[in-house]
Amino acid sequence: MNSVIDFIHANRGRYVEELTQLLAIPSISALPEHRDDVRRCAAWVADELARIGLEHVEVVETEGHPIVRADWLHAEGAPTALFYGHYDVQPADPLGEWTTPPFEPDIRDGEIFARGASDDKGQVFAHLKAIEAHLSQTGRLPINMKVVLEGEEEVGSEHLAPYVRGHAGELAASVVIISDTEMFDRGVPSICYGLRGLAYMQIELRGTKGDLHSGSYGGAVANPANVLAHVIAQLKDKSGTIRIPGFYDDVRELREEERAEFKRLPFDEIALRKHLGAPRLAGERGYSVLERTWARPTLDVNGLLAGWTGEGSKTIIPAAAMAKISMRLVPDQHPDRIAERFEAYVRKITPRTVDLKITKLHGGMPWMTDFDNVYVQAAARALEQGFGKRPVLTREGGSIPIVADFQAALDAPVVLFGFGLPDDNLHAPNEKFNLDNFFNGVLASAFLYREIAGTKS
Amino acid sequence: MNSVIDFIHANRGRYVEELTQLLAIPSISALPEHRDDVRRCAAWVADELARIGLEHVEVVETEGHPIVRADWLHAEGAPTALFYGHYDVQPADPLGEWTTPPFEPDIRDGEIFARGASDDKGQVFAHLKAIEAHLSQTGRLPINMKVVLEGEEEVGSEHLAPYVRGHAGELAASVVIISDTEMFDRGVPSICYGLRGLAYMQIELRGTKGDLHSGSYGGAVANPANVLAHVIAQLKDKSGTIRIPGFYDDVRELREEERAEFKRLPFDEIALRKHLGAPRLAGERGYSVLERTWARPTLDVNGLLAGWTGEGSKTIIPAAAMAKISMRLVPDQHPDRIAERFEAYVRKITPRTVDLKITKLHGGMPWMTDFDNVYVQAAARALEQGFGKRPVLTREGGSIPIVADFQAALDAPVVLFGFGLPDDNLHAPNEKFNLDNFFNGVLASAFLYREIAGTKS
Repeated sequence: MNSVIDFIHANRGRYVEELTQLLAIPSISALPEHRDDVRRCAAWVADELARIGLEHVEVVETEGHPIVRADWLHAEGAPTALFYGHYDVQPADPLGEWTTPPFEPDIRDGEIFARGASDDKGQVFAHLKAIEAHLSQTGRLPINMKVVLEGEEEVGSEHLAPYVRGHAGELAASVVIISDTEMFDRGVPSICYGLRGLAYMQIELRGTKGDLHSGSYGGAVANPANVLAHVIAQLKDKSGTIRIPGFYDDVRELREEERAEFKRLPFDEIALRKHLGAPRLAGERGYSVLERTWARPTLDVNGLLAGWTGEGSKTIIPAAAMAKISMRLVPDQHPDRIAERFEAYVRKITPRTVDLKITKLHGGMPWMTDFDNVYVQAAARALEQGFGKRPVLTREGGSIPIVADFQAALDAPVVLFGFGLPDDNLHAPNEKFNLDNFFNGVLASAFLYREIAGTKS
Repeated sequence: MNSVIDFIHANRGRYVEELTQLLAIPSISALPEHRDDVRRCAAWVADELARIGLEHVEVVETEGHPIVRADWLHAEGAPTALFYGHYDVQPADPLGEWTTPPFEPDIRDGEIFARGASDDKGQVFAHLKAIEAHLSQTGRLPINMKVVLEGEEEVGSEHLAPYVRGHAGELAASVVIISDTEMFDRGVPSICYGLRGLAYMQIELRGTKGDLHSGSYGGAVANPANVLAHVIAQLKDKSGTIRIPGFYDDVRELREEERAEFKRLPFDEIALRKHLGAPRLAGERGYSVLERTWARPTLDVNGLLAGWTGEGSKTIIPAAAMAKISMRLVPDQHPDRIAERFEAYVRKITPRTVDLKITKLHGGMPWMTDFDNVYVQAAARALEQGFGKRPVLTREGGSIPIVADFQAALDAPVVLFGFGLPDDNLHAPNEKFNLDNFFNGVLASAFLYREIAGTKS
């Protein structure tokens, strides 16, 4: 193991150079004009997997962006880990708010700035470097390893879940490792044991065939933008309680020990408020900020569009108005059931003066694991070895739908082994990844494979 | 008077030829590349004013397009009328939707198709032909006449109001005549005695410095798009009543005789609903559609923008949310006072979890004249003589800011004496002017001057 560790320390400079190449590829899965970039990124990753010594490297075509697969299966008798990550990234707009261009990685104060730096290229790359270190120094891995990297995580992983279900035998593993989450704070390594799910809806209201002159027709017809505001205002009241009937029916309440664990975490509300630049924090009454973001469901407008949005005034009644609205879900809410309840309620409260169209854009299951699971404990030891500090146990507000999918399809526990930081600006301008976390992540990953080898499940 | 009428009937063919020349000049005030055409049109109009026998013809330079002025002031002891119109036109795009080119006037089924046909060249030209008929047949006009024709009506009349204010003595008149409106319907001549005003506001809410991941932060902060919906929903309730305190304080209630007059109009709600493509008509409870659009104030969202508005889903909490909201005002509401009340109320109902910015983008006074005013009555008689049918008295939902400007600067009543039709396609492809309305408009204008001469104000 010492030679593995020494190798990692000796190769830091090269790691950053290679990561810079990976981050320079604008593999934005949401935008059709970047389709070729996504393919180019898949090819880059496949070349890298082969170069570090993995076998059966394959770019698997789907109806969307490809999945990249590789294996190393020579650790006879040892457990098998499936490592999952994604090589696609979020769109980068608004471009004007980036200090340096999103696909020209720039290092400032020990952080590398680029779209995808933390979510998820940097974290995936830490594992590839750990695998490379083992294989190059010892000719083997302590465990059997199956790698699955997808290119559609940021657009809903549409083709991954069917792929995993369809290849459950080939992908069978003792444990699934995912590094796509963040540490609780700088210097506080963490294992995340719960994620929220998602139901993402779009509402479109149409009042008339075309935009109308607001002078000639103001007062004659319903304005779909005004109606939309009334609809949205009835979804969540001012105390933060969601008013969709049945919305809270399946919510698993927080256990007292979880609330106590959350309270012990070094969490600073004022620092968060300042970091976000919010005048005040806000949310559901009766719950702390961590409880609200990790273990309570929410409803947020993600986008609004109607009528004239340019400079100055245009006196129109918009023909149509649109809102994108998503709900974060907690165990045991089900995205399909919540989408149905949302739709039924919106249909009920929308007046017949406008035509209503509701689309379900996206859904994802919430997820939670037992934190005394042997692989969770192995991961905790690896993080302590890599980061020099015992990790805390956390939940997270985001969704990684594939976590629940893997757990269901492979019947294997999932360990979230993340190296990001809360201020990494995921899905926002100036995304970054801390280079210390990157290097410690390589070390922790290298230790993780050894710790998993030592488990008795 | 008979010779004047006979002259008008005898010269119809020539009128159409001359109008065709005027309509062929592409005097589009909004487009810099048509600047010379606008000047050419001003010169054409000035030549025509001199040719028909008006005096002191002048092309008045402004910092924009010129104003054309002329007088005839020899009707000693008689009232003075100021006739206002505009010789500029709207842009003609989309060109592909015109059946014949916008600046090659074409006559089909008794209508002349060209940009500016109805708005406002055809209507202005009817007055010039009435003046010509009087002067050529009798050597005089029954009243003193001051003509003001501007070239910037379609771009906001920026230089006209200062010109009128600065020349209030020179422009002093007993009555201002404007022919730039439409009749209630084909065969239903109308006098419009009221226009709505406007207060146009913009609200911007900011929650955080940048967009946030809705998973990581959903539940921790106020979402400015959700807050905006709550704010808008509190501006106007579901029954269409505006909830801004004091909003209705200065509203002049409809008189019973106005409501009765509106009820008599041949108005078809079903036809309107079908024409607009609206599932249902809607608006303030307790008022008919005409009452709501002509004589009641409204509040409409003109534009909404927040977060992700493209295809598919982006899981963000938008940093900011924007709404453009305008209120149509009726006498005696004042746009400045309404803007203040709007701002005070929005400040009160916006929670401190977001930063609020309110901008007043635009304001315009509502306007109304008494319909028992002697000049309105004179106009009614003239329309009956010209069109063979007693006109109806109407109001209009839109704004013509210059009307209130004239009334304020000259302290004279304004008479809206329009010959357009609701289907004349103003500001749209295939603008047209009905030739019967044009000839009847010449006759009615000729009668109007005589009727004004007979008034005792």
